[in-house]
Amino acid sequence: VGPLDEVPTPALVVDLAVLDANLASMAAEARRRSVDLRPHAKTHKSVAVARRQLAAGAVGLSVATVGEAEVFARHGVDDLFIAYPLWADRDRGARLGALAERTRLAVGVDSVEGAEAMGRARAGCRGEIGALVEVDSGHHRSGCRPEGAAEVARAAERAGLAVRGVFTFPGHGYAPGAPARAAADEGRALATAAAALAAAGLGAPVRSGGSTPTARWTSPGVTELRPGVYAFNDAQQVALGTCTPADVALVALATVVSAPAPDRVVLDAGSKVLGSDRPHWLAGHGTVVDLGGAVITRLSEHHGVVQLGADDAGTVEVGRRVEVVPNHVCTAVNLVDELVVVHDGRVVESWPVDARGALH
Amino acid sequence: VGPLDEVPTPALVVDLAVLDANLASMAAEARRRSVDLRPHAKTHKSVAVARRQLAAGAVGLSVATVGEAEVFARHGVDDLFIAYPLWADRDRGARLGALAERTRLAVGVDSVEGAEAMGRARAGCRGEIGALVEVDSGHHRSGCRPEGAAEVARAAERAGLAVRGVFTFPGHGYAPGAPARAAADEGRALATAAAALAAAGLGAPVRSGGSTPTARWTSPGVTELRPGVYAFNDAQQVALGTCTPADVALVALATVVSAPAPDRVVLDAGSKVLGSDRPHWLAGHGTVVDLGGAVITRLSEHHGVVQLGADDAGTVEVGRRVEVVPNHVCTAVNLVDELVVVHDGRVVESWPVDARGALH
Repeated sequence: VGPLDEVPTPALVVDLAVLDANLASMAAEARRRSVDLRPHAKTHKSVAVARRQLAAGAVGLSVATVGEAEVFARHGVDDLFIAYPLWADRDRGARLGALAERTRLAVGVDSVEGAEAMGRARAGCRGEIGALVEVDSGHHRSGCRPEGAAEVARAAERAGLAVRGVFTFPGHGYAPGAPARAAADEGRALATAAAALAAAGLGAPVRSGGSTPTARWTSPGVTELRPGVYAFNDAQQVALGTCTPADVALVALATVVSAPAPDRVVLDAGSKVLGSDRPHWLAGHGTVVDLGGAVITRLSEHHGVVQLGADDAGTVEVGRRVEVVPNHVCTAVNLVDELVVVHDGRVVESWPVDARGALH
Repeated sequence: VGPLDEVPTPALVVDLAVLDANLASMAAEARRRSVDLRPHAKTHKSVAVARRQLAAGAVGLSVATVGEAEVFARHGVDDLFIAYPLWADRDRGARLGALAERTRLAVGVDSVEGAEAMGRARAGCRGEIGALVEVDSGHHRSGCRPEGAAEVARAAERAGLAVRGVFTFPGHGYAPGAPARAAADEGRALATAAAALAAAGLGAPVRSGGSTPTARWTSPGVTELRPGVYAFNDAQQVALGTCTPADVALVALATVVSAPAPDRVVLDAGSKVLGSDRPHWLAGHGTVVDLGGAVITRLSEHHGVVQLGADDAGTVEVGRRVEVVPNHVCTAVNLVDELVVVHDGRVVESWPVDARGALH
């Protein structure tokens, strides 16, 4: 708690007002569409942010790992969907059983073999474990074909899971111009999969999709959205047109540590705080706020090399502090112990990244 | 402690025998060249590995941040070089002062302004803080021109720092065919900088350089090497010819969680355990051991999408465990809470990544 200019750099700094506005805005979007909002907590891994999302109207959380589910369950979140085709060995089976006794729990499943393993691993566990069948809507990562969803759902039922519906991740919406089309693909894939389940007598209501760039294009028939990045936003979302620069709630605070040439300076923010993700449609490794023409051309672990625009050449001195919008906020947050929270330009809190390291 | 096949995935697994052989081999290389070995601890961030490096003959450690120095000092390491052009504000000045009272400490400096800030920030601190002037040997990151080293050294002296010499990082050696040339550049830059200091009456003995790929090409006149990656090695080092696949001491243990097409499977190792670093001269996001023709074509945070070679198509089933050699081991280690240590195929220990998150 104190002035922002005494925070040691590099640090990830969250603007509380912008965060809350983002949470409210997505919650309103979900209400307008009459869909459930189940934000993906991998973005923030933070109990403090999760509580704000739930208070803003989220029905529960999405997470990526059993470990993340355990962290949020321990802090009182009682409705969790592990949106991932888990492979359940004995260890995971026992942990899922324990989670199912204290929370409303669901897992992802995208193969008959995966469902069968889950059935073996959870043997003897009390508590209902829900299942959503993952289908591929065009991202071509995990997920079965939408037409094959019934076969997987049947295997999940045989394995003792409570089949609640289908889900997909329209990740192919992460490219300029792609979100609307990806959202349409998502709608079709979920409808096809749900129809396949219904035809097999496995009617289950949930059709879960959604991501930050596709949320506003969501098709009718989708019942649940799982965006994550929207809480903070990042340079990718600005480039995709999902948000404006004013909607970015998290920046990396950095210091210029070296100015070896008039047009080149080095920040103390490197890949160990910004993350290395850079899709080909982004020019650099993050956006330097207030240095318009600057491009972060290279990252080492603790160095961000900045090529300055012509207007700024020779004017950026060692010791100057700058803010950098990370390309992909989920991987940045995962690199720090805590988030520095500011309100009206002053540090008001620090939030631990509670589920950091909860990889399995 | 137990069988490796019960370790939950994803996990980073260290082979103790290979690690110790790597530490011994680099120590022998340094002895043969009569140079000091000061390994960079950013690679492992682990007290257990640091102790093995010191036992094998290292004179001390290199680190990247004050926070890393604090972690290793707290665990008894008494000779630390923060190989980074620190910008010292009041907080960092006080912490450096405290470190200087309990360890032999040196910091990097590459500008007059940086030296002056260090002088202000350390005002009132007892204990000697050594300084090495960073020069650019061709990587064009931080570092002043070798010819300008005396001006920076003079400023460091005025700031009350004990000038001990010069250092560089020949990072432009990280490309196929480049290590020998980068090592020659390093030797020239350090010689030029040391001559500039001597001409200014600032004779200081240390000429510190070195990195894993350039170490074997080190020029005469270099007095100290700071390689980091060599402890574990990684896919980059194999591709550079620095080591063989048998010298890789760390792998990510992963499980196939989805097999949506005969030629495509998905691992539970994504960018949150492998890291996203991929130089253009590496084909994929890590090397899948035992699946020769496989390429990890895409990473999401918890998904590694593997394109299988023709021989393996249709044969890799859900639930199978595989080992992946990360592209860049330093960023992978930084993502986990602990390293799983195996000897003769059995888990014998778990080492915390002690300095993880020590970013400033």
